[in-house]
Amino acid sequence: MKATILYGPGDVRVEERDLPRIEQPTDAVIRISATCVCGSDLWPYRGLQAINGPTPMGHEYCGIVEEVGSAVRTVKPGQFVIGSFFASDNTCPHCHVGYQTSCQQREFISTAQAPVLRVPMADGTLVATPDVPPDAMVPSLLTVSDVMGTGWFAAVAANVKPGMTVAVVGDGAVGLLGVLSAQRMGAERIIAMSRHEKRQQLARAFGATDIVSERGDEGVARIMDITKGIGADAVLECVGTQQSMMQAIRSTRPGGSVGYVGVPHGVELNGEELFFSHVRLHGGPAPVRRFLPELIDLVWNGKIDPGKVFDLELPLDQVAEGYRAMDERRAIKALLRP
Amino acid sequence: MKATILYGPGDVRVEERDLPRIEQPTDAVIRISATCVCGSDLWPYRGLQAINGPTPMGHEYCGIVEEVGSAVRTVKPGQFVIGSFFASDNTCPHCHVGYQTSCQQREFISTAQAPVLRVPMADGTLVATPDVPPDAMVPSLLTVSDVMGTGWFAAVAANVKPGMTVAVVGDGAVGLLGVLSAQRMGAERIIAMSRHEKRQQLARAFGATDIVSERGDEGVARIMDITKGIGADAVLECVGTQQSMMQAIRSTRPGGSVGYVGVPHGVELNGEELFFSHVRLHGGPAPVRRFLPELIDLVWNGKIDPGKVFDLELPLDQVAEGYRAMDERRAIKALLRP
Repeated sequence: MKATILYGPGDVRVEERDLPRIEQPTDAVIRISATCVCGSDLWPYRGLQAINGPTPMGHEYCGIVEEVGSAVRTVKPGQFVIGSFFASDNTCPHCHVGYQTSCQQREFISTAQAPVLRVPMADGTLVATPDVPPDAMVPSLLTVSDVMGTGWFAAVAANVKPGMTVAVVGDGAVGLLGVLSAQRMGAERIIAMSRHEKRQQLARAFGATDIVSERGDEGVARIMDITKGIGADAVLECVGTQQSMMQAIRSTRPGGSVGYVGVPHGVELNGEELFFSHVRLHGGPAPVRRFLPELIDLVWNGKIDPGKVFDLELPLDQVAEGYRAMDERRAIKALLRP
Repeated sequence: MKATILYGPGDVRVEERDLPRIEQPTDAVIRISATCVCGSDLWPYRGLQAINGPTPMGHEYCGIVEEVGSAVRTVKPGQFVIGSFFASDNTCPHCHVGYQTSCQQREFISTAQAPVLRVPMADGTLVATPDVPPDAMVPSLLTVSDVMGTGWFAAVAANVKPGMTVAVVGDGAVGLLGVLSAQRMGAERIIAMSRHEKRQQLARAFGATDIVSERGDEGVARIMDITKGIGADAVLECVGTQQSMMQAIRSTRPGGSVGYVGVPHGVELNGEELFFSHVRLHGGPAPVRRFLPELIDLVWNGKIDPGKVFDLELPLDQVAEGYRAMDERRAIKALLRP
């Protein structure tokens, strides 16, 4: 099959690889209906994260089960399934409390930008949709595998509740779906921080009531203005830089919460500032598996349409253009059809 | 009156100062029944925190109201009152959500190691007991002003719930009262980290089920042993150093919480480690005012006896010995009678 391999900064290729097969009795093999490029794929693509030789790429996926190992009980061939970017057993003590991305047996899914994928611990990792979905629903179902689940976790981690004022730092696909998540959870006011007109429009479509284009200290000052000097009740940090993290913490009211899902790159937090901020901090790799049943249900019943974040659709053999377009911020998120 | 003044490292004196008087119509003046030395007083006493000339000391207090300003409505002369180490209006948006130590008008109380104290914003700061307490109850009521309220906040911030396994880092008075707080909140297993036999005994008296004397990585390994490799559900950080903070974070299970109340001195948190730990972090200066009614009630009705942390009682003119004894760890906490 033709699969996506990163060779080095800016160098993504599609090349021939062996078809994945069942290796463990708990595996499933699925035929990918759609996959996509993640914001986190851009860190190594930009040379900001080292790779160790040619590296297969992709961790967002949905598709039809082709084959399952002898121990698999909950999914079967022919079903349409979605899984998280971390495979998990869904039975260990960490999974049990809803932190499947810290599963004691977790395995990162890293070869999903391809037509066929082996998924370990299929019973713990995959959730089937009620039926094979219509084609138009596939993009929204695909987002549930990572980007929508991650925006949702940012809002959960920030304790978003009905009536709250919520600020979202970051206008990538995760930030935009953080806006949608906060809207679904009943936030009254949602401030999206963005300086891109196209992304601002999508933020508004997802429920943003205010747009702030300033960043850093000026961005914080704007949030303080809007909240009458109090700060936001909840802030979603969806970038992962020092600036975005401090912007999030300083925009939050005492007793408020920051939910952070941008993988931190070079972030250091000063203990004393954090202490006197009285801010609550929670985040990490989103335990997407916890949210899969609920989010699939919301998409299936037309309550949310997170697939709108895909503004570029390409056949898999043009994956390099997907990386380029996202790197240059021409595209918010690129969907790939094998 | 004779008041406590810090002149420099190791140099505490009692000297003559003017008697405090009502300055604002919202003030109260109280005659101190008991005050004490706080662990945080030791930072400047040890020269680890700069002072700017001779500095009056003391922020833990309880006593009898002598006089109130013309605007004071909720307390009156003759009542026994307790207040927080930060005066607060108790009406601003931050007070409203229970973060009175971030009150928009907060004022630090800093002259309480003295016979008489002026308390600003008396209506927002002070809470009266049902009656003038018997003398034997005064030490426990005094703790509610800071050290008990701070241990309690550590447990609240760490989301301690019935049945949980809780670890407490720090065996100072705050840590010991963190143990007592966790016990009151229904924790099933409480691991106190201490290497002092006397403090270990008090920790056990307050409800600790396990004692861990190791620190740093070895301390973390012991917590992991005790929790079968999972980590504690909640960890109370009651020190404020880099080592104690990392010990707390690394002892916590994914999805668990660290409540930190030790004022951080030189603490820097690595964003990436925090992210992948999946730990929830909350803390800061304890909003004691939020807890005053509940904690006064628990002491008044004999449900808790936090005054046990005072193992040294001195007349105020021997305050220097109180600092020395705590600095040398001969005493857990020194109570002072003016």
